[in-house]
Amino acid sequence: MLADDTIAAISTPPGEGAIAVIRVSGPDAIRVAERIFRPRKAGAVLSERVLHFGSFHRDSEKLDEGLLAVFAAPRSYTGENMAEIHGHGGALVSSRLYEAVLEAGARAAEPGEFTQRAFINGKMDLTQAEAVMDVIRASTPRALKAAQEQLRGRLGDEIEAIRARVLAVVAHLEAYIDFPEEGINPHVGADLLRDIAAIQERITALLDTAEEGRILREGVRLVLCGAPNAGKSSLLNRLLGFERAIVSAIPGTTRDTIEEFASLHGLPFRITDTAGLRETDDVIEREGVERARRAIENADVIVRVIDATETYDLARTENELIVLNKVDLLASRDSLPAQALPVSCTTGEGIRSLVDAIVARTRGANIESPTLAAINARHQSCLVRAQKALAQATEDLAAGRDPELVALPLREALQAVGEVVGLADTEEILGEIFSTFCIGK
Amino acid sequence: MLADDTIAAISTPPGEGAIAVIRVSGPDAIRVAERIFRPRKAGAVLSERVLHFGSFHRDSEKLDEGLLAVFAAPRSYTGENMAEIHGHGGALVSSRLYEAVLEAGARAAEPGEFTQRAFINGKMDLTQAEAVMDVIRASTPRALKAAQEQLRGRLGDEIEAIRARVLAVVAHLEAYIDFPEEGINPHVGADLLRDIAAIQERITALLDTAEEGRILREGVRLVLCGAPNAGKSSLLNRLLGFERAIVSAIPGTTRDTIEEFASLHGLPFRITDTAGLRETDDVIEREGVERARRAIENADVIVRVIDATETYDLARTENELIVLNKVDLLASRDSLPAQALPVSCTTGEGIRSLVDAIVARTRGANIESPTLAAINARHQSCLVRAQKALAQATEDLAAGRDPELVALPLREALQAVGEVVGLADTEEILGEIFSTFCIGK
Repeated sequence: MLADDTIAAISTPPGEGAIAVIRVSGPDAIRVAERIFRPRKAGAVLSERVLHFGSFHRDSEKLDEGLLAVFAAPRSYTGENMAEIHGHGGALVSSRLYEAVLEAGARAAEPGEFTQRAFINGKMDLTQAEAVMDVIRASTPRALKAAQEQLRGRLGDEIEAIRARVLAVVAHLEAYIDFPEEGINPHVGADLLRDIAAIQERITALLDTAEEGRILREGVRLVLCGAPNAGKSSLLNRLLGFERAIVSAIPGTTRDTIEEFASLHGLPFRITDTAGLRETDDVIEREGVERARRAIENADVIVRVIDATETYDLARTENELIVLNKVDLLASRDSLPAQALPVSCTTGEGIRSLVDAIVARTRGANIESPTLAAINARHQSCLVRAQKALAQATEDLAAGRDPELVALPLREALQAVGEVVGLADTEEILGEIFSTFCIGK
Repeated sequence: MLADDTIAAISTPPGEGAIAVIRVSGPDAIRVAERIFRPRKAGAVLSERVLHFGSFHRDSEKLDEGLLAVFAAPRSYTGENMAEIHGHGGALVSSRLYEAVLEAGARAAEPGEFTQRAFINGKMDLTQAEAVMDVIRASTPRALKAAQEQLRGRLGDEIEAIRARVLAVVAHLEAYIDFPEEGINPHVGADLLRDIAAIQERITALLDTAEEGRILREGVRLVLCGAPNAGKSSLLNRLLGFERAIVSAIPGTTRDTIEEFASLHGLPFRITDTAGLRETDDVIEREGVERARRAIENADVIVRVIDATETYDLARTENELIVLNKVDLLASRDSLPAQALPVSCTTGEGIRSLVDAIVARTRGANIESPTLAAINARHQSCLVRAQKALAQATEDLAAGRDPELVALPLREALQAVGEVVGLADTEEILGEIFSTFCIGK
């Protein structure tokens, strides 16, 4: 199962820093490192997991000084032979060192290839492999926590538990397949139906975390709308400043997208200010209005900002929160309508209540008792397939159909659930089946 | 001499990457790491220089999984106790881990503080400490090579050799000071004058590398000028594309500065296109013209671009290279003037010759046989002070002045030379003096 080539990558972020780490993994990893490394103490043995001081060379040219650690398979991140080269963190010095590593027999790694190898070599399941990038990309403490739970294997464990139960049902059914003339005992049939229902319930519980998973990974889509000069931009700035966000730019968005990132009570929000979309000349305006319309359509939460000092209309759509801005300018607040939130972006009054209301309005985010899992779109698609197949199996079983026929959707469910953690499983089914068999029968 | 507090920093560049490294240094470094680290094998001994797998915690919260290595003083980069924490490379996950390190008893390190401690603890001299950042910031292979030579101690060694010779002269003179009535023996005086002249020669050789040092660290200032539509921007693009540069933006320049970075034959160039400085409306134009004037004044090389298809005047200033652009549009090239370089930015013709000419014109860059040292502005200022003091000492000595008086500028020279490598040296002078003394005299 081990890959037959050796990969390498600069594993630290690009840019200026004290240290750059180059990782090498594969059968030749240690030899590649040895080819360019000269330990300070000539002839020193490269004992495993020890940081050895020395210099890195290409032919006669000394490229850098630094540390080298080697890891022998399977005791490494990828489960393969690995080397870690620590050099100076400059762009040029590290890229030249990297070139030397490639010349010495490694090839440039594809994105995620180290973790892919860790998965292939059984170091982690697929949900854990996915969690590695979720941890790195997490932009709020809550998202980080969910990613870390998944990395620790909580989701994988739950999936394994569900799989084991499906497997037990399949094994039970398969036992009948060799003796189709016997048919399924009605008591057994009722037990199996109960088992399947219990499995469906657990899968439903996981599917219920999909929305939270999306929010934690991508952020809540919050849209600010309202008349010009109602104070949308001031409100945006207040929200941006509410919690000091670690990540200020949303990766993947282009400069002209006026989407901003904010952390509100630990949840990530992508805030679109529709104001900017309109304040251009005619031709572009149409496109701007269209974009604002789409933003509102896809929004998780819409905040309509109204100038409390003007006359206004409180009619609203279902998803909208109404904010009455500039209340600091009102002579009296007695007549403020109860269905709107009074706010002053100038003084900051009411901002905390608004944030509470926004977060409370956020669908799917289990704020008070965060669940241990928060599945992603791929998990969701596998689990939806599994639910469908289980529903089919239930129908087939209830209708007293042939065990072989009932086993088909169950096997499909098993496959779909297994795909969440990256398992292909026909051999395993066989193993489970025969282990419940009496040998000689 | 060891610092009494413990510092910590995220030592990898900020941003998204597989690995982030947090470094901790100081008397408490290992204890700080132990406070947040739980080895996978409970109770495992944290043997030095070994990468231990485990998890990092703040109170009951698990922050990350990763590797920890500890280094006991003085066998570390700084010469102090050190810990290296390797976690996931995300902005949030690494900053939370960093906060936990600070809570556990470290304080945030100032820029360069690790290397400063390495210098204070005698792990490197000041030129080597400076070279660390030169290596990290090097933008061309030649600059990197010079920085690496300096890091290896070549400049420090030469400074030490010069210092030893000054020290010998001073020691000789100081021996006379206690016996001023004897005066300086004329033969000895002549020897000392020769010694000082030889020292001055070595310092002059180092001072001659200052220009190359500036160029390697900051880049050659190349200015493109010429009439609108002569093809300055096309030429700029040709030069930018000549060698694929690793660094595309010049750190520290603001967006509105139209300075670009290019690597030409391994030398870094900062290219200013004066075109952009003028093509604005009236008020700003005056400022633009002023900036263009200053750019030309400070230029190392000026390239004047002329449209070969128009009538032109070849009058030029001393520092100018004249380029005749658009020669591909000429019916015949017979009448091209010899003092101009024919080029076509459209076809690329003549670009290589132009680059050769630009590099040849670059003052101070020793292209063919790069020197082993390329001093920086601080070294230059120390060495200029030393030369001045040595000239004074020569004058005093030649005039037969009191040994005590002659020793004064020599001690100043010694001080100035020592400052290059970061030495304060009155005690050392004393040591040298008394070691040449006969005890009991």
